[in-house]
Amino acid sequence: MYNLLKGKKGIIFGALDENSIAWKVAERAHEEGATFVLTNAPIAMRMGEIKNLAEKTGSEIIPADATSMEDLENLVEQSMEILGGKIDFVLHSIGMSINVRKGNHYTNSNYDFTHKGFDVSALSFHRVMNVLYNKKAMNNWGSIVALTYMAAQRVFPDYNDMADNKAYLESIARSFGYFFGRDHKVRVNTISQSPTQTRAGSGVKGFSGFLNYAEKMSPLGNASALECADYTIAMFSDLTKMVTLQNLMHDGGFSNMGISDIIMDDFIDKTEG
Amino acid sequence: MYNLLKGKKGIIFGALDENSIAWKVAERAHEEGATFVLTNAPIAMRMGEIKNLAEKTGSEIIPADATSMEDLENLVEQSMEILGGKIDFVLHSIGMSINVRKGNHYTNSNYDFTHKGFDVSALSFHRVMNVLYNKKAMNNWGSIVALTYMAAQRVFPDYNDMADNKAYLESIARSFGYFFGRDHKVRVNTISQSPTQTRAGSGVKGFSGFLNYAEKMSPLGNASALECADYTIAMFSDLTKMVTLQNLMHDGGFSNMGISDIIMDDFIDKTEG
Amino acid sequence: MYNLLKGKKGIIFGALDENSIAWKVAERAHEEGATFVLTNAPIAMRMGEIKNLAEKTGSEIIPADATSMEDLENLVEQSMEILGGKIDFVLHSIGMSINVRKGNHYTNSNYDFTHKGFDVSALSFHRVMNVLYNKKAMNNWGSIVALTYMAAQRVFPDYNDMADNKAYLESIARSFGYFFGRDHKVRVNTISQSPTQTRAGSGVKGFSGFLNYAEKMSPLGNASALECADYTIAMFSDLTKMVTLQNLMHDGGFSNMGISDIIMDDFIDKTEG
Amino acid sequence: MYNLLKGKKGIIFGALDENSIAWKVAERAHEEGATFVLTNAPIAMRMGEIKNLAEKTGSEIIPADATSMEDLENLVEQSMEILGGKIDFVLHSIGMSINVRKGNHYTNSNYDFTHKGFDVSALSFHRVMNVLYNKKAMNNWGSIVALTYMAAQRVFPDYNDMADNKAYLESIARSFGYFFGRDHKVRVNTISQSPTQTRAGSGVKGFSGFLNYAEKMSPLGNASALECADYTIAMFSDLTKMVTLQNLMHDGGFSNMGISDIIMDDFIDKTEG
Repeated sequence: MYNLLKGKKGIIFGALDENSIAWKVAERAHEEGATFVLTNAPIAMRMGEIKNLAEKTGSEIIPADATSMEDLENLVEQSMEILGGKIDFVLHSIGMSINVRKGNHYTNSNYDFTHKGFDVSALSFHRVMNVLYNKKAMNNWGSIVALTYMAAQRVFPDYNDMADNKAYLESIARSFGYFFGRDHKVRVNTISQSPTQTRAGSGVKGFSGFLNYAEKMSPLGNASALECADYTIAMFSDLTKMVTLQNLMHDGGFSNMGISDIIMDDFIDKTEG
Repeated sequence: MYNLLKGKKGIIFGALDENSIAWKVAERAHEEGATFVLTNAPIAMRMGEIKNLAEKTGSEIIPADATSMEDLENLVEQSMEILGGKIDFVLHSIGMSINVRKGNHYTNSNYDFTHKGFDVSALSFHRVMNVLYNKKAMNNWGSIVALTYMAAQRVFPDYNDMADNKAYLESIARSFGYFFGRDHKVRVNTISQSPTQTRAGSGVKGFSGFLNYAEKMSPLGNASALECADYTIAMFSDLTKMVTLQNLMHDGGFSNMGISDIIMDDFIDKTEG
Repeated sequence: MYNLLKGKKGIIFGALDENSIAWKVAERAHEEGATFVLTNAPIAMRMGEIKNLAEKTGSEIIPADATSMEDLENLVEQSMEILGGKIDFVLHSIGMSINVRKGNHYTNSNYDFTHKGFDVSALSFHRVMNVLYNKKAMNNWGSIVALTYMAAQRVFPDYNDMADNKAYLESIARSFGYFFGRDHKVRVNTISQSPTQTRAGSGVKGFSGFLNYAEKMSPLGNASALECADYTIAMFSDLTKMVTLQNLMHDGGFSNMGISDIIMDDFIDKTEG
Repeated sequence: MYNLLKGKKGIIFGALDENSIAWKVAERAHEEGATFVLTNAPIAMRMGEIKNLAEKTGSEIIPADATSMEDLENLVEQSMEILGGKIDFVLHSIGMSINVRKGNHYTNSNYDFTHKGFDVSALSFHRVMNVLYNKKAMNNWGSIVALTYMAAQRVFPDYNDMADNKAYLESIARSFGYFFGRDHKVRVNTISQSPTQTRAGSGVKGFSGFLNYAEKMSPLGNASALECADYTIAMFSDLTKMVTLQNLMHDGGFSNMGISDIIMDDFIDKTEG
């Protein structure tokens, strides 16, 4: 629409189906003039669907397990070849908790699952940047974004060990972002998005409670996947070159609300004058 | 009970009646071996009640308008005379919004009232420290505490301009705390207390909504005035000498909650499996 | 360049000279297709310079004292008339400390000056939004931005009472932003900018120290006024519709740095192996 | 000195030698009337030294690898037997980065080391609470504290993956603290301590740079290990019952400093008037 990413090259992790935020980012990046490679874990890919996205956006698909350095190295090398140069933007939208899937309560974790979920959801972000950094694969003033959730700062009981994984992920953004900024002028940020009805989000117990509560709490309501994609585009564009090491709340105002009128009404003593 | 403040001298602002946090602080400070002066605005003092407190704690009362430099200078000088030396601890528990009292909505403030409330609720803290600092009235390793509320960080719609005043107050704690620490080894902090059924708290519209919601959100429930006094004593004691420029949440965990199970239950779609 | 603000109407406060961030915002907003009114305090306007900006951007100038409700009402009404409709974006870039100008140390404030500086620097933001809100002068999904500085969160000793004013300003953004979001779908944010060599910035004592230190601390260096304008444009555009009540750090990463290698080098014991 | 922990029973992890914060906590807890068990990893224990501490404080030592559920279960069961009842306070002071030890730069991590360091430094805190919670081993109103460092929030480049581990640790405090508070009235907090010349701290490259810089930045200077122990005692005492899910800065004010006069002096242009 605006040509904001004209000529820019990217890698987008995590487009699963058309509800995925990564899917919307791919569509919007395409509209804004970018070219990019789509990637996902071989096991998570639903080739039928992602092929549609690839076709629609003129992209190639390179499967990669984000916990495998070999896969990531191959991904980055091939991407540069396909796109004809270094990378300008990367979206990390990867997360999975086996404890959640298996129904283990937070107070009763299976630590093998915790380690595996940590590796996929958090450490994968370090691995991706490790490869990009050491291969000098990013252009100066490139932009790396990972999606996160406010459970990293505050307690959402059913978010389980994903909360802790997101806290680690956000810390990686700062820690690696320092070196990436200092050495390659690349910025690294996380976007903390409203609860969103994606495949990942829907896996969380009582998810409708999240959604409804956040909708009523936020002065602008919950942000949609498409709106998150718009914001991500802004963070990839040259308009935001000096924003780095930040966790950016994209949530209709939720994060800075104590209570909204509409929610408080439910809690006022009916006998109060 | 522990002799935590044995031999320490203090000034306590804002004890109005037995529900006041400042009142509880005075009682607890007395139990812990401190001597102190009680003060309040002449207009706010209910001499009958505060005299009981003074008697019970062996304290003298010195009225002072916290927006008057003359009154504050007199207060500090007389306090040092009465107590026989420099001051070890100060509690600032002062707040008042005329816009709230007059029922002016936040979007329709009377700015004369805003200025007046700002002067009483926020700037008074600067004035108090100004006098203490310039008169070199604090002992090394003394402790200054002001009470605040989380509306300084997040929106509680009915808190009105008191939210902004508390944000300013907390900023003063940092700004003045730097100079007080650097020059006199005095620490300055704010304690951000759960909603509390005091005279001041009760003035806020829909206050029961606040209370009930916070009670259900906080894993430990709301903190009481007495518990706040205990915490304040800890902050006046020698156990916390190196804590400064901080805003300390005393709220049963409220501030770091996104949602509690009990509140989320109200928002789950009844049709969800 | 991108037509990001095509058809949007705005009001820009605070363009003083070509070093002003507001000046750059005006230039960039013009490039992006917006029309707007320029305003400043009659006393601060340097008509020669601002007329050049107005000419260059096809704007009209309406003087307004941001502490006068009458002036602000006139400004908003006239702006809607001139621009032919409601407002889409507003930039508040106003700040002034008389205590700083007069050389009063923070620990020795003149409280009349404090009140006056507070009125101009902080309360003016409330007044502006009060008028916009009550006149229903903003279009749905409009965007209001005020410029701020990190002294609102952390101590920069020479920033004096401007630190406290900025804390209050940021609180207003949240408090008023709630009502503006809830009722008119308007978002309100503050942008916390690197120290910038503007007329306002330069007034602060030891300003070169600020600049050099922040430059060395920030992985991307200090953000320039033009880069800040770019970011502001992004916040005015439709790409950021769901971001509200936020304080957005635009600082090359400074805010999340503990220490940089280059600064630490200065502090390492030379005898350390 | 005050009998603040009279009759309270505890478990203290991580006393290595007399420079350890945990060592000081043990000494202070003993002075305050507590009884407790000392524990450490078999591999880390220097039996000669810790036996002195045990003798001095009348404690028993139970070795436990904090990454082994079996060891932790044994530790908690035996502790309750030895101490004659449930536990009132627990100190977690455990941290270790193999990447740091091996000299791997953050941008070039060995991920097996990362996993191992994560297990020891962060996940161990979850394991400890898991055992305490599921064995119902904590008394109501008990207090659990873990030591952390500000690298969890801001970049200290040489802190390496310990920064990310501390972010995860602090997230565990919130996540588990919710359930521990809700179900057993137990509070869980982290104390974020100044850089401290302990065995762990000293392992970090350029540690003197940390120390000197923080000393000059903090209005009260760096907090010592003994002062940290005092603060920890306050957090174990009944004075702080309603503080939970918090990360408590114990750092002489460092965390809320932007810049101090003394540091800025180094950065001012010498030519500035």
